[in-house]
Amino acid sequence: MELQEAILKRRSVRKFTEENVTDEELRQIFEAVRWSPSWANTQTWEFIIVRDRALIEKITATYSEKNPAVKCSLAASTLIVACAKTGISGCYGGKELTSIKNWEIFDLGIAVQTLCLKAHELGLGTVIVGLMNHEACEKIIGIPEGRKVIAVIPIGRSATPLKEGPARKPVSEFVYLNSFDKGMF
Amino acid sequence: MELQEAILKRRSVRKFTEENVTDEELRQIFEAVRWSPSWANTQTWEFIIVRDRALIEKITATYSEKNPAVKCSLAASTLIVACAKTGISGCYGGKELTSIKNWEIFDLGIAVQTLCLKAHELGLGTVIVGLMNHEACEKIIGIPEGRKVIAVIPIGRSATPLKEGPARKPVSEFVYLNSFDKGMF
Repeated sequence: MELQEAILKRRSVRKFTEENVTDEELRQIFEAVRWSPSWANTQTWEFIIVRDRALIEKITATYSEKNPAVKCSLAASTLIVACAKTGISGCYGGKELTSIKNWEIFDLGIAVQTLCLKAHELGLGTVIVGLMNHEACEKIIGIPEGRKVIAVIPIGRSATPLKEGPARKPVSEFVYLNSFDKGMF
Repeated sequence: MELQEAILKRRSVRKFTEENVTDEELRQIFEAVRWSPSWANTQTWEFIIVRDRALIEKITATYSEKNPAVKCSLAASTLIVACAKTGISGCYGGKELTSIKNWEIFDLGIAVQTLCLKAHELGLGTVIVGLMNHEACEKIIGIPEGRKVIAVIPIGRSATPLKEGPARKPVSEFVYLNSFDKGMF
């Protein structure tokens, strides 16, 4: 698939078919994810593939009630729990180097976009769940020290044709030239 | 360009030719960036294109001395300052909804990966600079309240053919099945 098509046509998918995501599809996704850039190539990302039904239910129970992904997550064959090692990205000797704390969150954003684009190319839909109780999820998956959960990504085949995405701001509203006083476009 | 090629062949580029990045190239990049996903489609990203020579020098002076991007940033025709509106992404009524603070950092990671991939497709190299004094940069660009600088991205045409990227961990080292005890691959 063309990069442009992947970027423009990727959607957040919240209704999956019952068909499983295969090991081979997941392998292809993570073989792409690993080429994402990260702070000093620290690659602090770690992913748990969750296929155990009881575990899927427990993890979904950590989402905030109003999260629009609850239903699809419960029905999904596979969740991906995106975690990061802490105290490494943006740090030297465990000490944060800049005022942007937890740089691994930025790195995970990069890696998750790679993940979502590659999944889309393979005909798989994803939705990024951030509105959740991260600590509760960490307990459920038994996260080792020095790691944290950033997001959960239910993944599957979309049960319906992908629609137009929600509207986006035009470039004139978010790109400036030399200062915030002057638009670029 | 194929998505797979963009993901695998994109590199951090730290030596640019003197040729300018065109307005049309930048427009194509941000026309792609705007389709990135973000928390509840909040799109908190804002980008300053910096072409003013004095401003490029001042911004580069905010990088940490050891930052390997200092030289290329000084020589670049264009810097992109990636900013985010604060108190919106991950928030409701200005209040953070989860224990992951500053969710806009995650959203900016997503958007910056879209930017770097699209730039690569257009034959442009990028490097993400995070090791810097963010507050000093904010003063220099006169950032309005409610926004912060996340990273600076020098952009240009690579002066040398792109090499193999630095090694990455194999998927067996960062993907697990159901728990951290069991590898997926």
